[in-house]
Amino acid sequence: MTKKRRAATAARGERLARLSREQALIQELFAPLASDSPGALGLIDDAALFAPEAGEELVLTVDAIVEGVHCRPGDPADLVARKALRVNLSDLAAKGAAPAGYLLVLALSERATHSWLESFAGGLAADQETFGCALLGGDTVKTPGPFTASITAIGRLPAGAMVRRAGARAGERLYVSGTIGDAGLGLALLDEAPAWAEALEESQRAHLEQRYRLPQPRTALAPVLRAHASAAIDVSDGLAGDLALLCRASGTGATVEANAVPLSPAARAALDVEPGLMARILAAGDDYEIIAAVPEREATAFERAAQAAGVPVAAIGMIEEGTGLPVFRDAQGRAIALEALSYSHL
Amino acid sequence: MTKKRRAATAARGERLARLSREQALIQELFAPLASDSPGALGLIDDAALFAPEAGEELVLTVDAIVEGVHCRPGDPADLVARKALRVNLSDLAAKGAAPAGYLLVLALSERATHSWLESFAGGLAADQETFGCALLGGDTVKTPGPFTASITAIGRLPAGAMVRRAGARAGERLYVSGTIGDAGLGLALLDEAPAWAEALEESQRAHLEQRYRLPQPRTALAPVLRAHASAAIDVSDGLAGDLALLCRASGTGATVEANAVPLSPAARAALDVEPGLMARILAAGDDYEIIAAVPEREATAFERAAQAAGVPVAAIGMIEEGTGLPVFRDAQGRAIALEALSYSHL
Repeated sequence: MTKKRRAATAARGERLARLSREQALIQELFAPLASDSPGALGLIDDAALFAPEAGEELVLTVDAIVEGVHCRPGDPADLVARKALRVNLSDLAAKGAAPAGYLLVLALSERATHSWLESFAGGLAADQETFGCALLGGDTVKTPGPFTASITAIGRLPAGAMVRRAGARAGERLYVSGTIGDAGLGLALLDEAPAWAEALEESQRAHLEQRYRLPQPRTALAPVLRAHASAAIDVSDGLAGDLALLCRASGTGATVEANAVPLSPAARAALDVEPGLMARILAAGDDYEIIAAVPEREATAFERAAQAAGVPVAAIGMIEEGTGLPVFRDAQGRAIALEALSYSHL
Repeated sequence: MTKKRRAATAARGERLARLSREQALIQELFAPLASDSPGALGLIDDAALFAPEAGEELVLTVDAIVEGVHCRPGDPADLVARKALRVNLSDLAAKGAAPAGYLLVLALSERATHSWLESFAGGLAADQETFGCALLGGDTVKTPGPFTASITAIGRLPAGAMVRRAGARAGERLYVSGTIGDAGLGLALLDEAPAWAEALEESQRAHLEQRYRLPQPRTALAPVLRAHASAAIDVSDGLAGDLALLCRASGTGATVEANAVPLSPAARAALDVEPGLMARILAAGDDYEIIAAVPEREATAFERAAQAAGVPVAAIGMIEEGTGLPVFRDAQGRAIALEALSYSHL
């Protein structure tokens, strides 16, 4: 046997060991995540079966996170996993769809340890319970680059009921759920040690950081949007930028009263010491709240249904004629200059 | 304005430029790939709508390719794209499903040029035409690591008709489509300059390399499998390894007559000068042929239907009682020792 041949044989042995390792990993850590979805076939097949119910349509969305780009290298694995799943569930919610299942691609670097992956799978298990969706299938590959996870989420809704970006009409009210800007301020706290941090209480700083690390997708709002909204989008890249996308898709403009944009007490405290933060709050990403356009006649019903669903919503402005960028006005009616509409990772 | 603040402002401007770049990229190169799928909503939404037809079920599969692991850094972009799509279409074919659409995640390194991406999109366009499926949606992210593409493919089939790995029963015939081992030998030609290469004609070497670079998913076999096969799997990691997965899922063993395994003239020429290559051929990956278990009473109908579909199939052995690894026998009935069952990239 030549030296080259011996090397090739050793390489094949190594491949066999690696194959077993992948299959062991899948069976130990990920097959339990699929135990509630019969279509996942226990992850022993290489594809999943999905049986839609009569009269239902599906919403498909996919988002990837790259370590060092969308999450920080030291972030706890369970939080990384939950964020990867939740950003997709937020997309589904904005379409009015209920989570049904997901597929997971993991690109693992040599540095990925078993305990890190165990924590990652644990994060998914916790969120599957919370949001009522299960793993359907996936793929595990090796990468010389950073850890990357890609999740394809499948949502269900009644046929014809999907809420689009492109449905807004001039004269409709603009609503936003929850509070805006928290996640962006949380990221600033983690990365920049800003001067305004000192004006915040410890619990307020923790609130902002947590909002960055673990979004709360507004799944409870999905049926409310289906019933009452003409268009919606989730705030992943910033209120200003995502509203601009909704307007562009709808062929409309919009005006927003900045003072009506709902802020958390922590964001309010930061803004009090640094009023210039408003521009940043309006363009900050990662909030995963929902922007909705609601016809005037549906406004009261929308507000009541959101309240019944336990999701705070606030009227922040109007959809307008025109095709310009959305305008944000201060208390004096002056347009606020934004340096950027959005935070983008690309 | 402090130096830090100026830097932050510049960073936000940069982000805005990047966001526009992503959106321009999507609209220029990828939106045309979605023009035939109304549910893709022109890629201006962040999710796709998929409307199943009554009585149909869906098959979902996902596979990722990482540059330097699953494709070679110098590989032409259009071939990388087509391979990324085709490995998923092969999974669908093995389940008996027809391609319906796909979602695409691109993780782009700084080195990705516009012309490279143009070629990548061109490869997808060509294969969409060939296989009758369109882009439904996706995500584009930046990575400091190697180029990575992840494709989630959706297939359709009549409810209850999915062909699984787990359906084989002792006494059934084992079939395989096309020819086995070509892609693995093609990879060896590209990577190792093996001694047996000199015995091959130029066109034979080109054939083997092409089989590695561009798989031919057996989509035409899907309805034939639904009608006649009790279990199937595609050969992505090697005949021996993938057959072992089918047997494990089915709770059976199998015997294969190595001489009955169909070989291309090129693989036959290589084997003639190096008989030891048989073990490698049986464990070589990337063929994307189909292994099927077919009940004896269906065998003639299966063969005829495959022929009518234009897909060559060969009977190579039998499903057996037991739970051991599949046994490969030579012409004298002796078991062939395999150093590995499979080629795995992990």
